[in-house]
Amino acid sequence: MNKVKIGMLGIGNIAKGTYRTLELSRKKIEDSTDVSFEIVKILNRRPDVDRGIDIPKEKYVTDVNEILDDPEIDIVVELIGGIEPATEYMAAALSRGKHVVTANKAAIAANGEMLQRIAQENHAKLRFEASVGGGIPIINAITTALLSNEFTEVLGILNGTTNYIMTQMTEYGKDYAEVLKEAQEKGFAEADPTADVEGIDVANKLSILISLIFGLYIAPDDIPTQGITSITTEDIVTANDFGYKIKLLASAKMVEEGKISCNVLPCFVPADHPLAVVNNEFNAIYVTGNAVDNLMFYGKGAGPLPTGSAVMGDIIGIGKSMGKDAAYDKNPLLRYDADLDFVGEGENQYYIRVTAIDKPGVLGAVASTFGKYHVGIESMVQRAGQNAGKDSVPLIFIVYKTDRKVLDQALNELIENNYVESVDNVLRVQE
Amino acid sequence: MNKVKIGMLGIGNIAKGTYRTLELSRKKIEDSTDVSFEIVKILNRRPDVDRGIDIPKEKYVTDVNEILDDPEIDIVVELIGGIEPATEYMAAALSRGKHVVTANKAAIAANGEMLQRIAQENHAKLRFEASVGGGIPIINAITTALLSNEFTEVLGILNGTTNYIMTQMTEYGKDYAEVLKEAQEKGFAEADPTADVEGIDVANKLSILISLIFGLYIAPDDIPTQGITSITTEDIVTANDFGYKIKLLASAKMVEEGKISCNVLPCFVPADHPLAVVNNEFNAIYVTGNAVDNLMFYGKGAGPLPTGSAVMGDIIGIGKSMGKDAAYDKNPLLRYDADLDFVGEGENQYYIRVTAIDKPGVLGAVASTFGKYHVGIESMVQRAGQNAGKDSVPLIFIVYKTDRKVLDQALNELIENNYVESVDNVLRVQE
Repeated sequence: MNKVKIGMLGIGNIAKGTYRTLELSRKKIEDSTDVSFEIVKILNRRPDVDRGIDIPKEKYVTDVNEILDDPEIDIVVELIGGIEPATEYMAAALSRGKHVVTANKAAIAANGEMLQRIAQENHAKLRFEASVGGGIPIINAITTALLSNEFTEVLGILNGTTNYIMTQMTEYGKDYAEVLKEAQEKGFAEADPTADVEGIDVANKLSILISLIFGLYIAPDDIPTQGITSITTEDIVTANDFGYKIKLLASAKMVEEGKISCNVLPCFVPADHPLAVVNNEFNAIYVTGNAVDNLMFYGKGAGPLPTGSAVMGDIIGIGKSMGKDAAYDKNPLLRYDADLDFVGEGENQYYIRVTAIDKPGVLGAVASTFGKYHVGIESMVQRAGQNAGKDSVPLIFIVYKTDRKVLDQALNELIENNYVESVDNVLRVQE
Repeated sequence: MNKVKIGMLGIGNIAKGTYRTLELSRKKIEDSTDVSFEIVKILNRRPDVDRGIDIPKEKYVTDVNEILDDPEIDIVVELIGGIEPATEYMAAALSRGKHVVTANKAAIAANGEMLQRIAQENHAKLRFEASVGGGIPIINAITTALLSNEFTEVLGILNGTTNYIMTQMTEYGKDYAEVLKEAQEKGFAEADPTADVEGIDVANKLSILISLIFGLYIAPDDIPTQGITSITTEDIVTANDFGYKIKLLASAKMVEEGKISCNVLPCFVPADHPLAVVNNEFNAIYVTGNAVDNLMFYGKGAGPLPTGSAVMGDIIGIGKSMGKDAAYDKNPLLRYDADLDFVGEGENQYYIRVTAIDKPGVLGAVASTFGKYHVGIESMVQRAGQNAGKDSVPLIFIVYKTDRKVLDQALNELIENNYVESVDNVLRVQE
């Protein structure tokens, strides 16, 4: 039986999940592949800390070069996360001809092109299935079984923490702060939840998906991104009244004339859309291809074992082809070669919640201002009862497809003219 | 660029969809793989019939041996369907060392083991992604990216015709015969719908999935199978009242002690289960792995282009590895080697609708008979109003987990003792 030796960087939750996944299914993996996989060294800066897993201590090394310089190691599995030093370690491994598997969305979104170039120059493979959608094998599907499709759109619920928060707010009518605190207590949210709740994590994943699906590089910072911190129970109740659920959606689509729009925004998703029932910690990716039509992949987007399943899938894929020329196939994974323009957030329907001054004529003035900017109103709700006795009133609109910049101009004008006190929320409405 | 030559058997809808998929995405496929694919010969017994597609006439051959005996042809794509002569043609192609791609669930469910043996003996590949779930790349996922999982359960909505009928009955309150007629008019159902509506098509697909997931061969005829012809609007209304949707589900799971149960039955599916919102012609496969947990794949289970996408995915996968030793890797696709027993339909919750004799004491007698067989009643409904003035009354039960044989004994005793006139439906209830 062929033997493949693995050096693992990191001993956090995903690393432990990968180790456990291999141990759980070792027999099936060996029977199916005729390859024996062994994690021989693990970078662990503090080998004396109890990691809650039974790993022989002699596997631990404290110096990364004991792995990078070990000629016996075939595959380096990078699970330390963050852009640096992870990128530096992966580049070093690839430049020594070692294959690299990673779950690191930030490093791949930032430096995927460079890492892939180093991989190809050194006849090494770079795989990162676990960087998007945790256990969901979306990258494998797009780059192998679905290769005969030109894709026109991708939609994703790509962050379990925010989806858990939105689901709990929707199902139990709790407010954001309360659910966030619960999620932190249950370990579903980090002590510092910024990267999740502000959509940064999702923007990294969407950047990777766009390169796979469209062959265009859009840096995460360039993706119009809004997190979920502004969502109130009022938004959720209104969404429900109109037949929608609110989800933090990553979206990218081919608009006319070779143009790509994309965004990471909390969205009104129609209640009968398959993405509307993706709840709690589950993720889903919905793609549209010219042959396969609509396809959705649903599963656990995080967690040690689901992510370990994806990491092991990459390891097995590389291990099966090692020592054969197939290991050095043209690598169609990340592509930045498409002749496409990035056109920003794109034209969308939007939901708008404002606090308007409660005096005669204001509603007409608001509608006229929208009209002046050619923003068509599909639905409007004024719930006066809630604000009885105050001198302001909440107004809610759903508007027809419009350019976000034009919409923002209209909203600014409403504030400047003292018709509107504050713009409380603007959310995209998914078709 | 490497050139791969394809001989296609058949010129029906899937064959045309495969041809179109290749033409639609030829540039992307060549750019991504450095391989050029050409369909050089097509078996077409009646080359003068207008097939509604622009294919050069010189590609058509009327004798299958012009493809099987052509040393230039690398891959034979079998798209004629049915067990024979498809199996014979595939065996002949494989024995000549040609790779084979097929969409034929009946032939693979019946003869997959033999065909795979011939493939391995001749260093050829056999691929059949399109045989289960149309465009959904479930076989690729299970056999590659998810290979590190031991699976414990698979559930599937695997037939678009029956799912369309069930959805239309549910959404518009129409009865079975009416919807079937509409489906036939729209081309969603065959003139002879038997294989679809009696669950035979689904049993073939489930047999293939069980071999992939558990490594056990259960012949389609041995799978407890019930179609959708007995479903009435009353069943659908009752399901809705209890919080369920009715779906024709394929199910296989590992029960204790290395035992596998499986069945193809119309089921009560909880309305909040991801499978409950899989509507109309869409299919979905829901698997549970020991690492990845629950995962669902959703997409179009039929249609020329979605199925063509799956066929092309297999062709590309083979083409990329051709001429390299990777083409002759150990083939982990169909496995019939697991040390497992097949235990039939298994223990399940059931929904039961009977017509009972309307006289005092009957309800108590029915409940006592269930009790005698240790069949516990979770819910019971008697809607007397519907049968006012008749001497019989419909009774509906949902019972706790029980063995189907025991349940059938109880129901038989109710008929023998003249408490029950007829057992009108028994459906599985999905947890």
